[in-house]
Amino acid sequence: MTPEQARAAFRAGLRVPTAGYSAGWTQANLIALPRDLAYDFLLFAQRNPRSCPVLDVAEPGETSASIFAGDLRTDLPAYRVYRDGELAEEVGDVTDLWRADLVAFLVGCSFTFEAALLEAGVPVRHVEAECNVPMYRTDRECRPAGRLSGPLVVSMRPVPAELVSTAVRVTSRYPAVHGAPVHVGSPEALGIADVDAPDFGDAVEIRPGEVPVFWACGVTPQAAVMRSRPSFAIGHAPGHMAITDARNSEFLVP
Amino acid sequence: MTPEQARAAFRAGLRVPTAGYSAGWTQANLIALPRDLAYDFLLFAQRNPRSCPVLDVAEPGETSASIFAGDLRTDLPAYRVYRDGELAEEVGDVTDLWRADLVAFLVGCSFTFEAALLEAGVPVRHVEAECNVPMYRTDRECRPAGRLSGPLVVSMRPVPAELVSTAVRVTSRYPAVHGAPVHVGSPEALGIADVDAPDFGDAVEIRPGEVPVFWACGVTPQAAVMRSRPSFAIGHAPGHMAITDARNSEFLVP
Repeated sequence: MTPEQARAAFRAGLRVPTAGYSAGWTQANLIALPRDLAYDFLLFAQRNPRSCPVLDVAEPGETSASIFAGDLRTDLPAYRVYRDGELAEEVGDVTDLWRADLVAFLVGCSFTFEAALLEAGVPVRHVEAECNVPMYRTDRECRPAGRLSGPLVVSMRPVPAELVSTAVRVTSRYPAVHGAPVHVGSPEALGIADVDAPDFGDAVEIRPGEVPVFWACGVTPQAAVMRSRPSFAIGHAPGHMAITDARNSEFLVP
Repeated sequence: MTPEQARAAFRAGLRVPTAGYSAGWTQANLIALPRDLAYDFLLFAQRNPRSCPVLDVAEPGETSASIFAGDLRTDLPAYRVYRDGELAEEVGDVTDLWRADLVAFLVGCSFTFEAALLEAGVPVRHVEAECNVPMYRTDRECRPAGRLSGPLVVSMRPVPAELVSTAVRVTSRYPAVHGAPVHVGSPEALGIADVDAPDFGDAVEIRPGEVPVFWACGVTPQAAVMRSRPSFAIGHAPGHMAITDARNSEFLVP
């Protein structure tokens, strides 16, 4: 499926996690914030580049962006709407909720490098299992910026011990979509009490001989919204990403 | 010289280009803008990451930053002060000119990777010649952001033809300090009429068998100031950089 085809399917009502969709094309997290928070968010992203690599920023009120020719209000599979930091609803379309003062940020997503992991022989469990990737709030604080603060959120993929090094090497070449893992093994050292009970997405099986590997996650801005309580914000539903018109290869380093 | 020692020397009045200073430590461009332009600048940087890789942002009015323990008003060798986009003065100290509404941005500088070039056997002419690096305004436009627009500025190093590939390879590992060249050979194709007459810095000899290689340059924000004419701005004097407390290795990718 091309990005355009995938977006049309989501616009028509398909609500699924996007891992495995449109291989070769970059997927992105969405966070749309009132304009008066836009500087704080860009600064938060600059200070937390592992979790918040900004790929594109729409003009205030605009609903497309240079790497996303679709409509940001309809072309993602699902959205989360926050009022005063509380999750108010999860919906498939935010056309009626969009406001002229919203600035939409597209933040890199680790789904982007999964094709490279698979090519390198590293299995990706949630793709095999056809479920959402597990994501966890950690006890690591992001560097705050202005009115925004919050914990680092991570995604987890179980990796066979002999392939952990390969997984690090492959993903480190994609810093714009979270890059190398932030943590290998020991979920408890990240403050994750139960790896089988993710805060977002679905639990996946960790088989004998596999190590849980954690990457910074673009749900981090939504954790900052929950902590910092801006009056209004719209994000993607975790795992239900914006599929952009940018090729993965654009974000590959040397 | 440690960064602290170099900064003390500049604070005491030494006014020299900083290429070759404090090898192993990251050098940075300074641009300080009124707070109401801070979002436009961060967005300009996000849209022009080759020329404007932001390493750090100070809080409004603050004169140090997380990677720069010194005083941004005194600890660079020289500054340029702009009023309504016109270069008003070049001075060694801006203590009396600093304002509470200024936001200081530190932007990566290609001097940072020169130690790696030298280690790889690539000569660096302006270091040999003990002069400033030549820098040029090009005819390539940056992507504008809000009220900011302007041309790409590049620095140039003549590289022996057989080492151009090495120079590309080595510098591509430092995307946070401009990374790989934006252009190799053919200065005229960048709109540079006379490579011996740089717009900033000093001309250097291009010897037979050498190719002029161009990297994006952190003077680009000052070119945007000249074009976009904000009421007030302070930058470093080209080539006279902020020497930070961050090690080069922090910005190395795989």
